[in-house]
Amino acid sequence: MAMGENVKRQEILDVGTELIAMQGYNNTGIERILRQAGVPKGSFYHYFRSKEEFGLAVIDQFAEQYDQNLRSHLQDHSLPPLLRLRNYFEQALLHLSQCQFTKGCLVGNLGQELADQNERFRQRLEVIFQSWKDHFGTILIEAQERGDLSARHDPAMLAEFILASWEGAILRAKVMKSPQAIRTFIDTLFATVLTPP
Amino acid sequence: MAMGENVKRQEILDVGTELIAMQGYNNTGIERILRQAGVPKGSFYHYFRSKEEFGLAVIDQFAEQYDQNLRSHLQDHSLPPLLRLRNYFEQALLHLSQCQFTKGCLVGNLGQELADQNERFRQRLEVIFQSWKDHFGTILIEAQERGDLSARHDPAMLAEFILASWEGAILRAKVMKSPQAIRTFIDTLFATVLTPP
Repeated sequence: MAMGENVKRQEILDVGTELIAMQGYNNTGIERILRQAGVPKGSFYHYFRSKEEFGLAVIDQFAEQYDQNLRSHLQDHSLPPLLRLRNYFEQALLHLSQCQFTKGCLVGNLGQELADQNERFRQRLEVIFQSWKDHFGTILIEAQERGDLSARHDPAMLAEFILASWEGAILRAKVMKSPQAIRTFIDTLFATVLTPP
Repeated sequence: MAMGENVKRQEILDVGTELIAMQGYNNTGIERILRQAGVPKGSFYHYFRSKEEFGLAVIDQFAEQYDQNLRSHLQDHSLPPLLRLRNYFEQALLHLSQCQFTKGCLVGNLGQELADQNERFRQRLEVIFQSWKDHFGTILIEAQERGDLSARHDPAMLAEFILASWEGAILRAKVMKSPQAIRTFIDTLFATVLTPP
């Protein structure tokens, strides 16, 4: 693709990501994306083979960018592991608050919407969830090695518990239109679950 | 309405609830519901003023039935409170497994899909979530009064944490197509959070 074409493709992806995050995949028409991206109607299939391929590209791009965000917080070895985890949740809460909890978590949203409708989406989303779980698990092992967290926890199990609870708190915030459920998730997690031995 | 009409209305509601649980609200067409319910096309507006009114009736019926299910487990005073709560989660896990985690939680699904699209739905769903949270909170207070649960927890906060985590575990099970996240939620909750003083 020529330079200008890559820019256009990127613009379609970025606009599509925003719209899908806000209103879901099935509910987001290609026409609206193209109109908002300022791309002529009918040129969509020049950039993507199908809406499905486009949706998968949206997921891939989001996962890649989010992975960088996760790494920047969770792999900052200047801070103790549990503080890094807490900082990650705090900045995510701030970010979710800034858009009035309208978008929630793109991967959680699409998992809810598409897990039973499209097996390719489901599998791709599950790989992303597993990678997030692995990030959390690594932090928990580090915390156990430093003696900041009880060794009786199975880190993989606890990471799954944290990931599920986090996704649930984002959903509750979305329905409540309030940070309260996420605030409660963070405070309860660190006061009750992620405690020293 | 005449007797037969009530039966028809009920049939439309029941079929609609199944379809909406499996494929979402926006994705469920009235025509498909009527066809599956064996009701003549065009008679929908005899029973419901609009698709929105129908959707709200689906939510109301589900909430009422689910409240009875919750009460039958959580208010069975022949068992200690935390065991009642555990039994509730265990039977829900069994139920979700039986349909291969396709339906998830209707209220969670619709919250995810509609919280930002329709304020009437969002408010109705939030009231249901709050009532579930209150059920959990009552159990936690009972457990504290019996000395089965540490008094340092704020029962309302802990109830919110449990509700969010539970919804998140159902979402994870749906995407994973496995009971693992719910198994992990139940085991971690009772081993780590809901512990004696």
